[in-house]
Amino acid sequence: MQELTELAAQQVEAIRGIDTVWVALCAALIFQMEGGFALLEAGFIRAKNAMSIIAKVIIDVAFGGLAFYAIGFGIAYGVSNGWFAFDTGITDGDLGLGLTVSNKLFWFIQLGFAMAAISIVSGAVAERMRIWPYALFVIIFCAIMYPMAANWVWNPGGWLASMGFNDFAGSAAVHAMGGFTALAAAIVLGPRLGKYQENGEITPIPGHNLPLAAVGAFILWFGWFGFNPGSTLAAVGNWDLIAKVVSNTFLASAAGGVATMAYTYFRYGQIDITMVINGVLAGLVGITAGCNVVGPNSAIIIGLVAGVLVDIAVVVIDRMKVDDPVGAIAVHGINGIWGTIAVGLFATESGLFFGGGASQLVTQAIGVFAIAAFAFIVTYGVFMILKSTVGLRVSREEENAGIDAASFGVESYSTFE
Amino acid sequence: MQELTELAAQQVEAIRGIDTVWVALCAALIFQMEGGFALLEAGFIRAKNAMSIIAKVIIDVAFGGLAFYAIGFGIAYGVSNGWFAFDTGITDGDLGLGLTVSNKLFWFIQLGFAMAAISIVSGAVAERMRIWPYALFVIIFCAIMYPMAANWVWNPGGWLASMGFNDFAGSAAVHAMGGFTALAAAIVLGPRLGKYQENGEITPIPGHNLPLAAVGAFILWFGWFGFNPGSTLAAVGNWDLIAKVVSNTFLASAAGGVATMAYTYFRYGQIDITMVINGVLAGLVGITAGCNVVGPNSAIIIGLVAGVLVDIAVVVIDRMKVDDPVGAIAVHGINGIWGTIAVGLFATESGLFFGGGASQLVTQAIGVFAIAAFAFIVTYGVFMILKSTVGLRVSREEENAGIDAASFGVESYSTFE
Amino acid sequence: MQELTELAAQQVEAIRGIDTVWVALCAALIFQMEGGFALLEAGFIRAKNAMSIIAKVIIDVAFGGLAFYAIGFGIAYGVSNGWFAFDTGITDGDLGLGLTVSNKLFWFIQLGFAMAAISIVSGAVAERMRIWPYALFVIIFCAIMYPMAANWVWNPGGWLASMGFNDFAGSAAVHAMGGFTALAAAIVLGPRLGKYQENGEITPIPGHNLPLAAVGAFILWFGWFGFNPGSTLAAVGNWDLIAKVVSNTFLASAAGGVATMAYTYFRYGQIDITMVINGVLAGLVGITAGCNVVGPNSAIIIGLVAGVLVDIAVVVIDRMKVDDPVGAIAVHGINGIWGTIAVGLFATESGLFFGGGASQLVTQAIGVFAIAAFAFIVTYGVFMILKSTVGLRVSREEENAGIDAASFGVESYSTFE
Repeated sequence: MQELTELAAQQVEAIRGIDTVWVALCAALIFQMEGGFALLEAGFIRAKNAMSIIAKVIIDVAFGGLAFYAIGFGIAYGVSNGWFAFDTGITDGDLGLGLTVSNKLFWFIQLGFAMAAISIVSGAVAERMRIWPYALFVIIFCAIMYPMAANWVWNPGGWLASMGFNDFAGSAAVHAMGGFTALAAAIVLGPRLGKYQENGEITPIPGHNLPLAAVGAFILWFGWFGFNPGSTLAAVGNWDLIAKVVSNTFLASAAGGVATMAYTYFRYGQIDITMVINGVLAGLVGITAGCNVVGPNSAIIIGLVAGVLVDIAVVVIDRMKVDDPVGAIAVHGINGIWGTIAVGLFATESGLFFGGGASQLVTQAIGVFAIAAFAFIVTYGVFMILKSTVGLRVSREEENAGIDAASFGVESYSTFE
Repeated sequence: MQELTELAAQQVEAIRGIDTVWVALCAALIFQMEGGFALLEAGFIRAKNAMSIIAKVIIDVAFGGLAFYAIGFGIAYGVSNGWFAFDTGITDGDLGLGLTVSNKLFWFIQLGFAMAAISIVSGAVAERMRIWPYALFVIIFCAIMYPMAANWVWNPGGWLASMGFNDFAGSAAVHAMGGFTALAAAIVLGPRLGKYQENGEITPIPGHNLPLAAVGAFILWFGWFGFNPGSTLAAVGNWDLIAKVVSNTFLASAAGGVATMAYTYFRYGQIDITMVINGVLAGLVGITAGCNVVGPNSAIIIGLVAGVLVDIAVVVIDRMKVDDPVGAIAVHGINGIWGTIAVGLFATESGLFFGGGASQLVTQAIGVFAIAAFAFIVTYGVFMILKSTVGLRVSREEENAGIDAASFGVESYSTFE
Repeated sequence: MQELTELAAQQVEAIRGIDTVWVALCAALIFQMEGGFALLEAGFIRAKNAMSIIAKVIIDVAFGGLAFYAIGFGIAYGVSNGWFAFDTGITDGDLGLGLTVSNKLFWFIQLGFAMAAISIVSGAVAERMRIWPYALFVIIFCAIMYPMAANWVWNPGGWLASMGFNDFAGSAAVHAMGGFTALAAAIVLGPRLGKYQENGEITPIPGHNLPLAAVGAFILWFGWFGFNPGSTLAAVGNWDLIAKVVSNTFLASAAGGVATMAYTYFRYGQIDITMVINGVLAGLVGITAGCNVVGPNSAIIIGLVAGVLVDIAVVVIDRMKVDDPVGAIAVHGINGIWGTIAVGLFATESGLFFGGGASQLVTQAIGVFAIAAFAFIVTYGVFMILKSTVGLRVSREEENAGIDAASFGVESYSTFE
């Protein structure tokens, strides 16, 4: 019996070890997505602002990370009143999540989601927003706004969690949250100079380095294989679930790419490669909520729809004269909604299409629209306040000259001597 | 006893958990090699075609992935008649491989090998092939051709597996398969305009962005540490094997780099850095078949030979007027053969140099030449059919202008303003 | 009892499996940092030397790796006399480290540290050092110099290990070692032509491709989540330690970035984005020694200090007319010292600020200054010998024309047609 007890104790350690390896490495994969955001965004905009957008993503990580450490995590994962919590030093208690990993590690993987959400915003405000007001907003977002959404969805006491809302890795809490924050930010900030003409014409502003954007896209795609399966938060007991999540994640992304290729080819007569990158990302965003509850064929359908939705959304948003230089609102906002709602349609147990009735669908819709509205309204307010106090935009001269040279005294590319 | 039974049950779950972590993360490493292929190929060709090659790699992933899901996996891993299988919904049965991970996860890691194989081809057809015929070929390759080779080698019922063929992570099934498909494709397609002059002169067409190619190379190098050790398909019980595979993989790659540096320096008076990248990759391809059965010094020798072979092969292939813009045939085809045969020479138990006689060597040679011939012949046929029906090449005007601008309406680099 | 014995045996295998997964994947993360070094360094220098610096990093990996295999590992981890060991074939014995992973895997992760150390040097000698003398030095460094430092710090019989020196993942053994090697190398080599004018003016030589440098920085940042937690060398029994290391690593890096932003903004009136990248890296270097023994708030303070130190050090080193094109000495050398000493200040059990007295602090100072002095003196001697025999620098013509074109016959960027 002595030996049995020892063996059992050792097994507890082993299980903790396995789950720690899993979460630590998935968290690292999620973390490196920040490089993906930075490079994707830099490649999709003009060279004269490339380093300033990379700086903004570093701010997402550095300021956002410290804010989520000091305040945000406690708001998200303390004892919830349904809407928020308020604990500091939360990293030492029992969070009621049945974790086998340390709270510190849980904090780090959750931070990855927070940083992803704010990095969506950095793309939408590219080429025109001043850096210190942006840093201030990053702090507000990572300390308060995002943590509240996370509380609703993932805190066991959150109001959406209590309703049975299924948002496995965050189509709503991360992507719709980030995307509708981005929408409000882009609206208040206004378009880049010269983007929309008085006569209604829209001037395309092509990205300056599409292979660099592709580097970013591949990094994001890679990172999603930590983002979605890492949301299991444990490997032991989840061997089948992890496999399901991984394969669904892949299938939806592939379908998103195929759909965009086909759509842009038939709609415009040629494949839009830039949009194909966004189509893949849209498929990934779309499957993020339901990767744990849908079958593989459903994952493909979700991805196909996402890949078309994103193409349409980019055009519609542009026609609304909302200037989103990298398509972040379409990719993350619109497909965050789609992915969340798709759970209500395709979930094998509770989805409308599989005989589960409409209740899951209603819950999903309530949840994602609540989050989108929350993100939009609060951001709109905060940005209006910032606009009328510290100011949001760089000067006309700075915008024309490029933020890199004017504000930072650097240029991305020196003469290629 | 109750406790013992519980403990044993928990241990089964723990082992599944460990193996799932291992395979899921190795599969993610393999998956991100697609970014490596895309960027390596883009950097090694001209800017005017860079986005079109990246699009081709996205097609490898998206179309290839869906084809391998719908058809290919069943052909590879269903109940084999020695040459192929035909099952759909295969992901739910027992594959007879003693897997501790879910079939869905096994599918995803196998998909990584399929995508790698087809991505070899995308490099060889760069700068001149139309995208839709390419997409069609990707489907054929990932649905039927590659799965047959995988069936022969890795399906327990495959004819090569039955012979004791050792191709641990696919020098033959992936690299020779991809490389000889690339050879036939490049031959039927013909060289890029202006590459080979009437008077026999060969015009070098340098890559437009070698640091971008280096990004790709480092990504591939990284990914190989998932590719080779991940082929164990389980971590528990394989602690020593994984270490052997990892260290052999490294040593061969280092030796490949050193050999190419020395060879090009002594042969041409200066180190050819572009070829050094290929030398490293050649070392990796060379060790892929035998990383589980050779000792570390043998791994170094295999890498050294690979690093010289690739230099010679690139020149020979070029003199044969087969236009392979990125050296894919030399890296993957020739060294796929070398690596497979090297098992018969260096395997510590069955290799010729270690007293194992010639039988393993003969088996290895039969296997890799069968795969190379299969790849070449079928591809040649399919490409001839495509050529005489839908057509393979972009128009002269398009090729001169660049596929990116002509077919896709984009340019990789906008003015660096 | 039979079953119990079997279960216990299986558990041993399971634990070995877990630890192998952990170390193999952390080692892969560390390995891919080489791509990060290469791209960071290439981006921070002029285009005309970009491929030559990438070649130097490949030499770090290829020559350095083989040297560490053949000789270095035995010097580091054989039976130590306090200063060095000398074993070959060491990979088969018991290293006295209580490892649950194979010696071969331990070798591979240790190789990652050796390669990181030498890659620090490649940055400091950029744009002017000949490649073959560099390769020779890489061999000396990875075969003898670095292994001796590793022996002192991490071999159970090393003189610093015996004193209770705490250098968890190598602020001293890797970063100070590499940084002070870089300092001596840069001094003996002399500055790039035109860098320091006769009249005392310093000509800034901006990096040619800052987004490429950012790619490198993000890769390094990612890799650090293998570098630091992977130094546990086992996951089972370390679930809490791994979480601590991971979260401290992040917090210090974020603080390093924030500090550099604030410092450069208040000191120069604008944020220096290039330095922010170095600030993040400085925070990472600073926490590397103590990530296992300090609390999260201490990690933040360590990072804040590192982020300011690096800014000051870059300026001071430049004023001393030591030409370090990428800031490697400031990032790794100065902050390697800072991080090592910080353990003596902030360690929760033995640190001065936490009531542990000064003894740990003294030990830390002795250790890191010994390593820095050792690195500096030996490198100075070896470089002087190389200078007066084979010669170190490329010719003036070559330096003006660029090493890529002159020595290697390539150019990083062909006309962007």
